[in-house]
Amino acid sequence: NQEFDFTDHSHRRYNPLTDSWILVSPHRAKRPWLGQKETVAKNTIPEYDEKCFLCPGNARVTGGANPKYESTYIFQNDFAAVKTEQPTLPAHMDFKDPLKNKLFKVESVRGNCFVICFSPKHNVTIPQMKHDELVNVVGAWQQLYNNLSKEARDDGKPFKYVQIFENKGTAMGCSNLHPHGQAWCLESIPSEVSQELKSFQKYKTENHCDLLGDYVKLELQERTRIVVENDSFVCVVPYWAVWPFETMIVSKKKIASVAQFNDKEKDDLASILKTLTVKYDNLFECSFPYSMGLHQAPLNATGEELENSWFHMHFYPPLLRSATVRKFLVGFELLGEPQRDLTAEQAADRLRALDGEVHYTEKL
Amino acid sequence: NQEFDFTDHSHRRYNPLTDSWILVSPHRAKRPWLGQKETVAKNTIPEYDEKCFLCPGNARVTGGANPKYESTYIFQNDFAAVKTEQPTLPAHMDFKDPLKNKLFKVESVRGNCFVICFSPKHNVTIPQMKHDELVNVVGAWQQLYNNLSKEARDDGKPFKYVQIFENKGTAMGCSNLHPHGQAWCLESIPSEVSQELKSFQKYKTENHCDLLGDYVKLELQERTRIVVENDSFVCVVPYWAVWPFETMIVSKKKIASVAQFNDKEKDDLASILKTLTVKYDNLFECSFPYSMGLHQAPLNATGEELENSWFHMHFYPPLLRSATVRKFLVGFELLGEPQRDLTAEQAADRLRALDGEVHYTEKL
Ligand SMILES: O=P(O)(O)O[C@H]1O[C@H](CO)[C@@H](O)[C@H](O)[C@H]1O
Ligand SMILES: O=P(O)(O)O[C@H]1O[C@H](CO)[C@@H](O)[C@H](O)[C@H]1O
Repeated sequence: NQEFDFTDHSHRRYNPLTDSWILVSPHRAKRPWLGQKETVAKNTIPEYDEKCFLCPGNARVTGGANPKYESTYIFQNDFAAVKTEQPTLPAHMDFKDPLKNKLFKVESVRGNCFVICFSPKHNVTIPQMKHDELVNVVGAWQQLYNNLSKEARDDGKPFKYVQIFENKGTAMGCSNLHPHGQAWCLESIPSEVSQELKSFQKYKTENHCDLLGDYVKLELQERTRIVVENDSFVCVVPYWAVWPFETMIVSKKKIASVAQFNDKEKDDLASILKTLTVKYDNLFECSFPYSMGLHQAPLNATGEELENSWFHMHFYPPLLRSATVRKFLVGFELLGEPQRDLTAEQAADRLRALDGEVHYTEKL
Repeated sequence: NQEFDFTDHSHRRYNPLTDSWILVSPHRAKRPWLGQKETVAKNTIPEYDEKCFLCPGNARVTGGANPKYESTYIFQNDFAAVKTEQPTLPAHMDFKDPLKNKLFKVESVRGNCFVICFSPKHNVTIPQMKHDELVNVVGAWQQLYNNLSKEARDDGKPFKYVQIFENKGTAMGCSNLHPHGQAWCLESIPSEVSQELKSFQKYKTENHCDLLGDYVKLELQERTRIVVENDSFVCVVPYWAVWPFETMIVSKKKIASVAQFNDKEKDDLASILKTLTVKYDNLFECSFPYSMGLHQAPLNATGEELENSWFHMHFYPPLLRSATVRKFLVGFELLGEPQRDLTAEQAADRLRALDGEVHYTEKL
């Protein structure tokens, strides 16, 4: 009678943040790969590119020019997915047709979208930036969050949630190598975030504790999924990770949003960001692609929203086996449920063992 | 005072099948694209490839050889994500630690995975196959479904749901061009399917009608999202589509699974599959990549499961603007909510207008 072995036998794990399941098939990493390969970006990118829309001083697509910025630089997205001014729909759209009213739920969405240049240098990425420069990036997120809160509160702008994120690398749909992130600010709370808030609320009602507070406690006790930690934050491959090397950075104590960060916390977030991304790049010795983003309290949060929010960041990197072989979340994943080929603990072991200080390009 | 224009103003639509929202930003299709481009497969693929693991008579990766099959051919996946024999976990895993019991929900998963070769010819795809050959593909799905039901019922095999799907094209993670689909059969109902069944159940309790029955009625009445229809099925770009040219084929009357198809319905599914995929290929004059799959009743369904199931297929194709420019569902989509750049009605208009009979390669 064989024992169940989590590192070999198929199982599914539950994600309490999104209320969904993930199929884990650890033995499957052995199959050969004959499919699509990613191209690896060349290492000959200049520090300044005259054709880049994001470099200091350059012209933008829609006319106008960037200032000669020297640190971070925030501007409004020239192709925003939402606009501050547009006609609105009634809160409950009445199509007149009862069947349509039942099946076609629709809401108008106003808001604004921003681009955040992390650095004036065209050819760096987060793992290659200096600590102080990364503190400035965290500062830029804080400033943006505070400004948008203020505009919503004082000028009645239709801003309820700001989703700050970065798509890094062509494999994650990034169309410009210049180091930058985005912020989409909407009058509605996006699905993923509102699902999380719902889960946090439910957990609190049932357990009189914070879901992420309990989760951090458990991870610090188990120590099998930790990638790196410091005084204020811990970075883990979550128990329910979907992407091969998915991670989550969570604040150790309850912090609702970047607005509440003190200097020590800004410092600590910058430092854990650096270590994690250096490890990522060192894993396959390439500029490691990912989508990452901040989950935090809505702008001008209600008491209940504030009560349920716990600052964390998700990193979703697609690479699985090498700089060119990614995991495809396709057929079974889209129609059935997400499936992964190694356990969260196996991924964490590999990331933890990697150098998080010296970037592989500095070793050559 | 401007009126709300669904073809220009941002809004979010609700997906009643998955209980989630989609952000629609129709004006956004105008932005320039400088990012990753897909490679287009060459048209010089041979009818038989001696290095292909799926061609008739060839050796397989794990030893053994394919028979010289002449129609469809089903075999067990050499790198199955689940296995029929493995140790199991107790229904409620007890970790001893109360915090772990709360936060680490886990289930063991047994099952089996199959590959379904659609044709002995290495260089065809569904839109290039003859009607009778496609009827055989539908027949193969039916046969597989019936066999698995029987094995579960008579031999106690751990099979509860079979997810039949196809990943087509390298952009959707397909590693072998030979026309084939897959079937992953599990002892649990996958997340997506169980969420749908939950939604169907809820709708029925509230409205005493079938959600998809009402939806088909509405689409046949509105006629703005129909791509093609015949006696038994209708193909629409769903009101809540996420992928640019996402479609759904739904049976017009309630059919719980392929097991219930009569000859007319097999014929009609083959024919609508052909028309839809010819249109897809004709859209950008390329072999149009997608993931597609069948949603239907669980194997040996309970009365309630049977009552709630309504046969439909989802097609998730990634291309947005051309044969080489795809939509990336990344940063905002993963962290916030899915976002699309054209409305469902705009996509349906384009697909409807295309030739669904003559494949573009036959016109050259
Ligand atoms: O089974 P294949 O074709 O080797 O693999 C493909 O389909 C699977 C099921 O959707 C995915 O899990 C894999 O990531 C993908 O590459
Ligand atoms: O805004 P960008 O960088 O042009 O576009 C990228 O990020 C967006 C937000 O995740 C996605 O909707 C796009 O598909 C992607 O290409």
